[in-house]
This record gives sequence, C-alpha cells and structure tokens, in this order.
Amino acid sequence: MASSHFSKGPLTKFRNAASCDWRKMKIFLEGKENVDFGDRIAKCLENDPVFAREWKTTTVEEARVLVHKRWSKLIEYDFVGLSKGVLPDVAKLDYFLRTLEPYDAGLTTYCMMGSIVPSTIISLQGSKKHQPLVEALLQSKIIGSLCLTELSHGSNTKAFQTTAIFDNGELVFNTPHPEAMKCWSANLGSTATHSIIFAQLIVNGSSHGVHTFVVQVRDLKTLEPLPGITIGSVGEIVGAWNGVGTGWMMFRNYKTGLEALLDRNCSLTKDGVYKSKFKNPAQQHGAALSALAFSRIGVLGKGGQACEFAATIAIRYSFVRRQFGPTDDEEIPVIEYPLQKHRLFPILANAFVIALFHRKFSKIFAEHAMRTASGERSQELAELGKDIHVLSVSCKAVTTWMGVKALSEARLACGGHGYLKSSRLNDYRNDLDPMCTYEGDNHLIIQQAAFYLLGQAKQKSASSPLNLTSALKKPVEPLKTLSGDIIQDASNAHKWLIQHLIKETGLFLKNEMNLGKSAFEARNNAQVAYIQPLSVAFAEFTMFEWAYDISLKAPEDLKRVLVKLCKIYILANLEKHIPVLYMGNYCTGPDLGKAIQEELSKAESDLTPEAISLCDVIAPSDFLLHSSLGSSDGRVYERLFNECQKTANSRPTWWADLVTVLNKSKL
Amino acid sequence: MASSHFSKGPLTKFRNAASCDWRKMKIFLEGKENVDFGDRIAKCLENDPVFAREWKTTTVEEARVLVHKRWSKLIEYDFVGLSKGVLPDVAKLDYFLRTLEPYDAGLTTYCMMGSIVPSTIISLQGSKKHQPLVEALLQSKIIGSLCLTELSHGSNTKAFQTTAIFDNGELVFNTPHPEAMKCWSANLGSTATHSIIFAQLIVNGSSHGVHTFVVQVRDLKTLEPLPGITIGSVGEIVGAWNGVGTGWMMFRNYKTGLEALLDRNCSLTKDGVYKSKFKNPAQQHGAALSALAFSRIGVLGKGGQACEFAATIAIRYSFVRRQFGPTDDEEIPVIEYPLQKHRLFPILANAFVIALFHRKFSKIFAEHAMRTASGERSQELAELGKDIHVLSVSCKAVTTWMGVKALSEARLACGGHGYLKSSRLNDYRNDLDPMCTYEGDNHLIIQQAAFYLLGQAKQKSASSPLNLTSALKKPVEPLKTLSGDIIQDASNAHKWLIQHLIKETGLFLKNEMNLGKSAFEARNNAQVAYIQPLSVAFAEFTMFEWAYDISLKAPEDLKRVLVKLCKIYILANLEKHIPVLYMGNYCTGPDLGKAIQEELSKAESDLTPEAISLCDVIAPSDFLLHSSLGSSDGRVYERLFNECQKTANSRPTWWADLVTVLNKSKL
Ligand SMILES: Cc1cc2nc3c(=O)[nH]c(=O)nc-3n(C[C@H](O)[C@H](O)[C@H](O)COP(=O)(O)OP(=O)(O)OC[C@H]3O[C@@H](n4cnc5c(N)ncnc54)[C@H](O)[C@@H]3O)c2cc1C
Ligand SMILES: Cc1cc2nc3c(=O)[nH]c(=O)nc-3n(C[C@H](O)[C@H](O)[C@H](O)COP(=O)(O)OP(=O)(O)OC[C@H]3O[C@@H](n4cnc5c(N)ncnc54)[C@H](O)[C@@H]3O)c2cc1C
Repeated sequence: MASSHFSKGPLTKFRNAASCDWRKMKIFLEGKENVDFGDRIAKCLENDPVFAREWKTTTVEEARVLVHKRWSKLIEYDFVGLSKGVLPDVAKLDYFLRTLEPYDAGLTTYCMMGSIVPSTIISLQGSKKHQPLVEALLQSKIIGSLCLTELSHGSNTKAFQTTAIFDNGELVFNTPHPEAMKCWSANLGSTATHSIIFAQLIVNGSSHGVHTFVVQVRDLKTLEPLPGITIGSVGEIVGAWNGVGTGWMMFRNYKTGLEALLDRNCSLTKDGVYKSKFKNPAQQHGAALSALAFSRIGVLGKGGQACEFAATIAIRYSFVRRQFGPTDDEEIPVIEYPLQKHRLFPILANAFVIALFHRKFSKIFAEHAMRTASGERSQELAELGKDIHVLSVSCKAVTTWMGVKALSEARLACGGHGYLKSSRLNDYRNDLDPMCTYEGDNHLIIQQAAFYLLGQAKQKSASSPLNLTSALKKPVEPLKTLSGDIIQDASNAHKWLIQHLIKETGLFLKNEMNLGKSAFEARNNAQVAYIQPLSVAFAEFTMFEWAYDISLKAPEDLKRVLVKLCKIYILANLEKHIPVLYMGNYCTGPDLGKAIQEELSKAESDLTPEAISLCDVIAPSDFLLHSSLGSSDGRVYERLFNECQKTANSRPTWWADLVTVLNKSKL
Repeated sequence: MASSHFSKGPLTKFRNAASCDWRKMKIFLEGKENVDFGDRIAKCLENDPVFAREWKTTTVEEARVLVHKRWSKLIEYDFVGLSKGVLPDVAKLDYFLRTLEPYDAGLTTYCMMGSIVPSTIISLQGSKKHQPLVEALLQSKIIGSLCLTELSHGSNTKAFQTTAIFDNGELVFNTPHPEAMKCWSANLGSTATHSIIFAQLIVNGSSHGVHTFVVQVRDLKTLEPLPGITIGSVGEIVGAWNGVGTGWMMFRNYKTGLEALLDRNCSLTKDGVYKSKFKNPAQQHGAALSALAFSRIGVLGKGGQACEFAATIAIRYSFVRRQFGPTDDEEIPVIEYPLQKHRLFPILANAFVIALFHRKFSKIFAEHAMRTASGERSQELAELGKDIHVLSVSCKAVTTWMGVKALSEARLACGGHGYLKSSRLNDYRNDLDPMCTYEGDNHLIIQQAAFYLLGQAKQKSASSPLNLTSALKKPVEPLKTLSGDIIQDASNAHKWLIQHLIKETGLFLKNEMNLGKSAFEARNNAQVAYIQPLSVAFAEFTMFEWAYDISLKAPEDLKRVLVKLCKIYILANLEKHIPVLYMGNYCTGPDLGKAIQEELSKAESDLTPEAISLCDVIAPSDFLLHSSLGSSDGRVYERLFNECQKTANSRPTWWADLVTVLNKSKL
C-alpha cells in the first residue's frame, strides 16, 4: 500500500507491493500512544542542534562530553516525567529508551544507569529512609552507578570480596586486595556521585554474605572522589560504551552511616545486631540479585532491536543494490537471490517475534512489580516471579545472541559498503555486542531454564502461572507422517525436542552421579549436549508460542503477514535442532528435514513483496537510524556519492615528507 | 615441557603440562628459517620507538600518519629485500606479512597494495615496457593502488563502467556517471601515485570488454591529482583499514599513452588495431582477473591467523580466569568447563589445520607461478592452475568465515574483560572482518567449488593434479556400523556427504530446468540447500585431508598432538552437516550423531594439558599480539590493574558544568 509518509525513491515501488498498511501494523505492534510518543521524541531530537551528528568516531573524551551535553538536554525535555521524582510507567520508559537506542546506545545507558536502575534497586531493596535518594536520582540531582563486578569476579557474585564491616555504629568499606577492585561500572568512571555497592557484610567478625549498599562516592560541589575512595576509568572499551564513563573504584577505610545498607530484607542496629528476614544466606543472596531482573527484560528487548536495525539496513539496501542478472544487460536486486533472502528474512522474522513477545512480557512484568510494591505476598505471586525470572534469563540470552548474529550477517550482506562507518552496521554491532555478557553472561544464565524444566518435569502437578510448561503437557509421539500444516509439524517437533531433551538430560545426570561424579561435575559435563540446547529450545519455542498466539488474533490483513513471519521464525530456528530430532528417532529419512528446508525457502520467497513495508514498521526514523545504506528513501548512491565528494582532492597533510621518502628511495 | 623462553607466571604450570616441545612444533609447522626471520622482525619492531603504541583508537588522520611513518621505516629495514627491485620469494614475503598482521593490519595492507600487489599484476599482465614500473613500485619510488570496484559494481566485474577509449593514438579515460566512480581502493585515497585500473576498452566505437591498465594518478612532486582526475577518501571505514587511505576516483577525459594498457594478452596499435590472444571476451576477462589469485591465497592465510589470535588470547585468559568451583572456597579456571573447551578448542584446531594446509598450498602456488613466468604452457599446468583457483576461492571463504567467527566467540569467552580495547579482540575482529568480502565475497566465490565438482563428476576420467576429487574416487555406502576409529568414520561420512550433495545438486538442477527455469534461475534456487553446503564440505574436507596427511608424517611426539587437533577439526566441522547425513539416509538412530558428540567432547578434554603450549606455537610475540588478556606470562590482573591506575582520580573536564546541571535540577 502506498504511503505519503516516505520520500519517493528506488524503494517506492517495492513499498507499494505490500498487502497491508505499515502504520496499521506498527500500531498493532506497539500501540498508538507509544508510536506517537516515539515520533515526538524523534522529531524533537532531529530538530535540536545539540543532537546533530556525523559519521565520525569520536575520542573517548569527546564521546563523554557529548553524552553529558545531550543528557543535560534530555533532563530539560523531561520526556518521561522523571522530574516528578517517582518511578515512571514501565511502558513509557521502555519506549523512551527504545527510541534513544539507535541514536546513541551510550546515552541510553547513561540515562538508565545514572538514574532509573539505581533508583529501582533502592526502591525494591531499601526502606523508607532511602526514599529521598530515589527522588534525587530520578530528578538528576545526583547521579548513580552500579558496582557488582570486581576485577577477578563477575558471574560468581557470591565471591565478591569488597567488605562492609560494622564498626562502632558505622560501616567501613574496604577493597582487601587489587583483584577485589570494583570495575566495569557504567557512569562511575566519569560522573557518578553515588553508587550501589555489592559487598560482604561483616558484623562482629562473622560474615553474612553479599548485601546491597548505597553510598556517596563523589563530592557534589567539586566532583572529586570522597576521602577513602579512589575512582578511575577502566580505559577505552568498545563503541558507544566509551561515552558512558565505565569506571573502577577502590575503598580504603571508607566510613558511612548504617543507612548505607539497603535493609528491606534485613536489619542492622547501632549495637551491631544483624537480622535477616530469610532463613538462609542463599535466599538473602537471591533477593539481592532479583532486583536486576528489571533491566534484564530491557536487554532482552535490545536483542530484538538489534534484529530490527540489521533487517532494516540490509533489506532496504538489498532491494536497491543490483548485481548480476539473467542477461549481461539486466541486473536484479540482490534480494532476488534465494541465498540473500535466506540470510536476511529470518532476521526480520526474529525481530517481529521478539517484539510481540517482549511487549506482552513487559506488561506482565510491570503488573508483577506493582503487586509486589503494593505489599502483596501470595504463593501465586511468588510462582509468577519465578516464571518471570526463568523467562527473562533464557530469552535474554537467546534474543541477544540473535541480535548480534543479525548485525554481523547484515554487514556481510551489504558487501563492501557494509564496512563504511556511514552504514552504521559496525557501530551497531560494537555497541550492542556486550549485551551477550552484561546482565549475566548468556552461556551461564541460560542454563537456569534447563534446571527449571527438570524441576517442573519431576513434579506431578507442576504449576506455572505463565504456562511455561505447555510443551510438557502431552507426550508427543515420534513423527509418523507430516500433517501438511508445516507450522503444526514444526510445533510438534519442537515440543518433542523439549520433552526428549528433558528426559535425556535427566538420564545423563543420573548416569554421571552413578559413576561417582559430584553434582557440580555432572552438571558441567551436561552443558554442551543437554543443558544448553534444552534451554535454547525452550526459550525459542516459548517466544514463538506467545507471538503466534497474538498473531492469530490480529485483524485479518495483518494476521496473514504475521503468520508468515512466525512460520519463518519457527522453521529457521528449528533447523539447528534437526540433528537431535533424527538422533532421538523422532523421524527418519528425508521427509521432515526436506519439508523444513523447502517450506522455509517458500516462505522466504512469499515474504518478498511485504519486506520493505515490514522494514518500515520496525525501522527507527531516518534521523535516528542514521545509515547511508538503510534510509527509507533508498537513495543509497546519491548519499554515498555526496559523502565522498566532501573529500575531493584533499592532499595528505604529510605530502612533503612522503615526496622526500619517494625521492630517497630513488638513490 | 618447561621452557625458559617465557616469563614465569600463572601460566607456567599449564605450559609445563604439555607432552611436546612448543618450539619443535613451531619449527615443524613453519620452518626454522621462517621462524627465525619472524623473530628478527618482531625484535626489530619492539625495539624501535617508531613502532611503540598504546591501547587507544586513533583518528583517521592519526592512523594514516602513523602508517606513513612506519612504512617509511620499513623501507629502511628492507626486510624482504624489495630494494633490489625484483619480486621477492613468496614464502619470505608471506612470513613478513604474517608477522606484521597482528601489529597493524592497516600497515600490512598498505605495504601489499602499495607495492607487491600492483607490481605482481603488472608482471603477470604487462609486457617488457612495463618492467620499470614493477621496479619502481617494489623500490617504493612510486606507490600503487588497485581500482576494480565502482560505486554500483563490485562482484559483477564484467559490468564495470569506467571507459578507456582509443582516440588518435591515445587512451582517454572517463567515468560516464557517478555510479561508475571507482571506490574502495586501498592507498588511493591518501597517497597512491599510480593505479591499476579495470575499465572497458573501446576502440573505434566497439567495446572489447574489461581490460587492465596502469596509469599515474598523482603528481610525484606535489602529490596533487593529475588534471582530469578527481580523488578522495571513501570516508571513515572500519578499524585499521582507516590507516590505509581507502579512496575513490573519477576520470574526466584523462589522457594517457597506449602503454597504459597491460598487453600481455592483447595488442593495440597506434592506428587503432586491436587484437586479443583469446578466442572470446570471456577468456580475456578471466585472464584479467586471474592475476588476483595470488593475494587471495594470502587472505586464506589471514583467516587462519584470525583463529590463531582468537585462540591464543581466549585460551590463555581462560586458564588464568577462575570462576565458580566444586565448593564455595575453591574456584577453577574457566577452561575446566567442558562448555568453554567446546567453544575454544575447535578454534585452536582450525588454526593448526589451516596453517598446515596453507603452507603446503602456498608452496604449490609459488611453483605454479614460477613455471608460468618461465613461459611454460602445458595442459598439466593449465589443469593445476584450475585446481589452484578452485581451492583458493573455496578455502578462502571457509577460513575467513572460521576466523571471524573465532574472534567473536573469543571475545564472548573472555566475559566482560573481552570488551576492553586492551584485550584487542574487538580490534582484531574489526580489522579482519572485511576479509569475508574483499578478494571476492565469500558467498559468491565459494559457489565455484560446487560447479567444479559437478563438472568433474560428469567426466569419466576427470584429472586433478592436486587430487581434489579424492572424495569421489570410491562410492561410499551408507553407514552400517561404526568402525571404532572415529577419524575414519568421520572421513567416510564426509566423503559420502560430498558424493551425495553432488548427486542431489545435479538432480535438483535438472529438475528445475525440466520445470522450464533458466540456468540462471535454477542455479540461484540451488544456492542455499545444495551449492553452498557442497562447496563448504569440499573445502573443509580437503583442508583436513592435507593437514592430516602431514600430521601422520610428523615425528612421533608431534604427531600425537597434531592428530588430536585434526580429530577435533573434523568432528567439529562435521557436526553442522549431520542433518544431511540423516536426511540422506547415510545413517539412522543415535549412533553416528552421538559418537561425533561424545568423541569430540573426549578429544577436547584430552587436549587440555597441551593447550597452553599449543598457543605458544601459534602466538605472535607479546609485543605484536599486544593483548592485556593474552600475554604469554598470564599476568592478566597485574596488567589490568596497572592500566587502570593510570586514570586514578582524574576529574571529568566538564565537572563544573555538571555541578551546575545538578544544582539546576534541584530547583
Ligand atoms: C559494556 C559492559 C558494561 C557493564 N556494566 C556493568 C555495570 O554497570 N556494573 C557492574 O557491576 N558490572 C558491569 N559489567 C560487568 C558484567 O556484568 C560482567 O562482565 C558479566 O557479568 C560477566 O562476568 P565476567 O566478566 O566475570 O565473566 P566470567 O564469569 O569471568 O566469564 C568468562 C568466561 O567463562 C565462562 N564461564 C564462567 N563460569 C562458567 C561455568 N560455570 N560454566 C561454563 N562457563 C563458564 C563464561 O561463559 C565466559 O565465557 C559490564 C560489562 C560490560 C561488558
Ligand atoms: C576493507 C575493504 C578493502 C577493499 N579494497 C579494495 C581495493 O583495494 N580495490 C578494489 O577495487 N576493491 C576493494 N574493495 C571492494 C571489494 O572488492 C568489494 O566490496 C567486494 O568485491 C564485494 O563486492 P560488492 O561490494 O559489490 O558486493 P555485492 O556484489 O554488491 O554484494 C552485496 C550482497 O549481495 C550478495 N550477492 C551478490 N550477488 C549475488 C548472487 N548472484 N547470488 C547471491 N547473492 C549475491 C552478496 O553475497 C552480498 O551479500 C575493498 C572492500 C573492503 C571492504
């Protein structure tokens, strides 16, 4: 369908080939209010010279200064209403961050880590006396940061070694040795005035495990670190993260009052009496970490955004780029090659499925958070919390892997021009890459899904408020014949896969234990062939189920297209599990394997007329996307040509020296 | 075995666990002369302040100035003896470039593209009158560049649109429209004085297709572009490539003499009589491109080097990094986790197999080049040339894919610290990434292997001087039982795979044609499921066969370790083809699939005691590698800590402005 929203250009005719209206689809996906809100932010930034930019790598210092300037401007705009000093509506916040992400991932992080994340943690873990800090953080009167990671410990959070020792009614912080130095803390390296610290609480010589504290780290007038604290930058890191000022910190007898302890789940009196609300330190530790789930769901969404940027740039470019053709005189757009479709359309499908899933999941999370905050304490709420946790860790891992892979593939799919700074594909990849690592290393956190499933499978009447065990409900029999409905067939195969891997994992672990291995060893040995594939299959399939369900309920014109995307998603993701299907005797011979290949190829071909319009649905505005290859008008060559002309006939600054060298070589 | 070569540190005990001597292995792999030569270059650079460096991204301008300075110094060192003005020994040159690559991939390219590549092309395609240019390029009296790619054409070389029109005894060059602008030419953007140009030769109104020319583009005294030529930079690109000065160029009635035409295979007289030595333009075109095979084999080697850098940094770090353990008090090196081994040891195996293969292949290529240069024209030489071509395109694609994947995985495997600039993993990836695209887009060039195999399979008595059809010799029957020798079993499976895919591809193509599709369409439709997997399987297996063969002939102590590496290589690479093995009924049930998984896991476990020593074999010197995580002494934390201390308590330069913003927010 035509749209006057986009400038005319080489993409117009492909855009017009779509069967449904891109804006209707966008509103279905994101909600009218969010779409309008996003548009308003995008326009604002585009018209504000503070947000003007070019295709040029800045130095670390320049990046930080720019982030500071733009952050100051964002405080003035107050898009999400933080100036009120109360935690904002999750959906609104999410949409603000989503909109900012393609503009500058560093700026997004700076806003999140300086204000939203620490204030959320304090809200969830602190008590009434900490409320003024929450307000101050939200209103940007102070700047926050988050210090878990130490030089020698990241994933193993129990082993953090920074100490907070009770001493005469005060807390004294120390970094016992260099390897316990806090590091990788966003915002800390340049500007944070406060910090959330994870440290071992020691009272009267006995350690109570890792607790969460909030302390002031810099003077508010001079911005110098307070006495007893040394702060610095971890040095240059990757991409937009340099704008954030990632820092390290060491304590040397740094003293604070007891109010530094976030004490929702424990208490510590002036006389050194410590009490925890939990039965054991493991629970206490779990509670300290649970506050992080909130930002993990945000990262899950970033994985989807990475797919959106990748798909938009590479697919738009592939419709414009022509290379080879049926005759020497006729060249066809490279998207016409089935190989190029196969490289790019699954990325588009992933983007849509993640978007549908993420929006629903965020809503569920927000409700859960509200109920928790209102003081509710029910069995059902606790179980819902567990479901949310399992889903957040496993899907965060899967979406961020998908996202990073998408950006790599997209760059390659753009041939040489993909490596131009102005394509932005390299920048996006560098900026988004670390999402596989922060908020929990993917390879580690995803394992929790397998253990959850093993536990659920053991219980006779396992309950899951989010119905996460739907794949386990009915035993799936090995395949006899294909049903002819490939989505049905793929779903069945996927369910069988999950059931089979649960059984095999259980057997493997039992066998290892019988061989005398410890639980630790047995689990480690099961990582590659059992725990990881099981967790991946679970996360992929759950996202599919949710997205497919929403798609089926969409208005007919949208439904037709969404179902196509769901089909590509499930087939492309099932492909890598084919070995298990055959090894486990779910099927034999060519039928299922070929059906997956051929139906996928057909679906990719079918999607072609919709592709440009679908990119329009998920694409950030041209200004935000800022890609010479991925603009909505498709005027790639004009843009590249004009950019090139800026450097016409500029002589190297070292030309005279060069001439001398060339002449010397003549001797 | 112990070695005094490396400083003591956390890696010493792991190094001592190896069963064979790392230096003996290195010499077996690379040859004593090359190892010594490499050591000499490394020492030289390390001791020369011009080559000092830090972990800091430079601006584009800074990068270019640095490359210029260091290149000038390399001319003085004259490591490969270019000052003699004759093309150097291929092995020596290769080793020089290999040694320089980890130091700065931009500098390596600048040397290659400014001198070696253009002089080789002129040697192969030009005639006697061009000899002075060859000398001048090698002696750095002039600087070269290579212009194939145009704004709208890269892969489709036949469609280049730059024209060289014969006019009154001269050649007149033109860029007919903006999209025909030459671009992506290394060295051209900043310093090249000369350029190899691919352009359509037009004589008396008739076009003779793309020919190769050499023209001067800048004045040697002023370094300004010559009249009729406009030159600029394509703008910022990725990583070290910015140091190279990648440029664009447009012609407007630029006139040269006829000697600009490289005329080994054709002639053009003053009177406008053109003659080609070939029967048809396709052959002429093929010959023009064949000169590029030389540098493609170099790129194939770079794929292997990427695996070497990735393996060295991530494996050394994984032996030092401890996280979690059997008890709360005991932490184990992360390399102890089977998952971490599974992520990293196949990279080590790929590095060794590629190295063994590449060295043998380079020798064969050098011999072939010598025989060609000496004027030999035999059927056998022609066939050898064809084999070399097929092997270079398919293996270049496979090794560069392996290399880029390796660098991504390595970075993730180093957790948070992997994203430090000082890890160098991000830089290596950015620098090496484009090798998947230049010297032929991988997805396109690899397809040639499938067509070669289809052709060979059709001939009754196909001959291949390099025995590339070894997998086709005997029909492999579907698997009945495993032999117990997993290498044997994997080889058989691999051979069956190639035979099966050849058959299936043939059938598919025939079927498409029967359905009325054109050859162009049929081939395109076969890309995903047939042509690409077939080509990949062929390249992977050929590299295995060559490397395994060399390994079996190694001294016993080395052989034992090399065979372990070959085993990991073939099993890890066979894994992705498992679906085809089952779909094609090569096997059913769990046996083969499980055997591959389990034997791979066992082999990865077996390799652990050798791993550090194997990294020592392939690692560049610490100075060249320049990685805070990958140094041979394993003193990771000391190095990170010291680097951090440099920024202790530096206040942001914009602190005063920040204080104002914080205060304003208080209102
Ligand atoms: C850009 C960025 C921003 C960050 N921001 C912050 C911040 O604001 N605040 C903060 O506190 N931290 C921050 N971090 C740190 C981040 O949270 C940690 O890096 C992350 O949790 C991973 O931990 P690690 O580095 O210790 O990895 P490690 O645990 O050391 O992992 C190293 C490798 O070992 C493997 N491994 C470890 N254990 C096992 C096992 N049991 N089984 C199998 N494999 C294993 C891992 O998979 C990985 O490949 C940031 C990191 C980055 C990159
Ligand atoms: C760092 C760098 C340095 C370079 N240096 C030089 C240099 O010195 N001199 C020079 O002349 N050039 C140079 N190049 C250019 C390089 O050679 C080309 O970019 C390369 O050949 C790829 O061509 P392309 O960009 O036209 O890709 P395209 O052919 O446009 O490919 C775009 C996409 O379409 C796909 N595609 C195209 N055709 C088909 C098909 N038939 N079937 C399926 N898929 C298809 C490709 O796989 C790719 O994904 C350089 C490039 C880079 C990145």
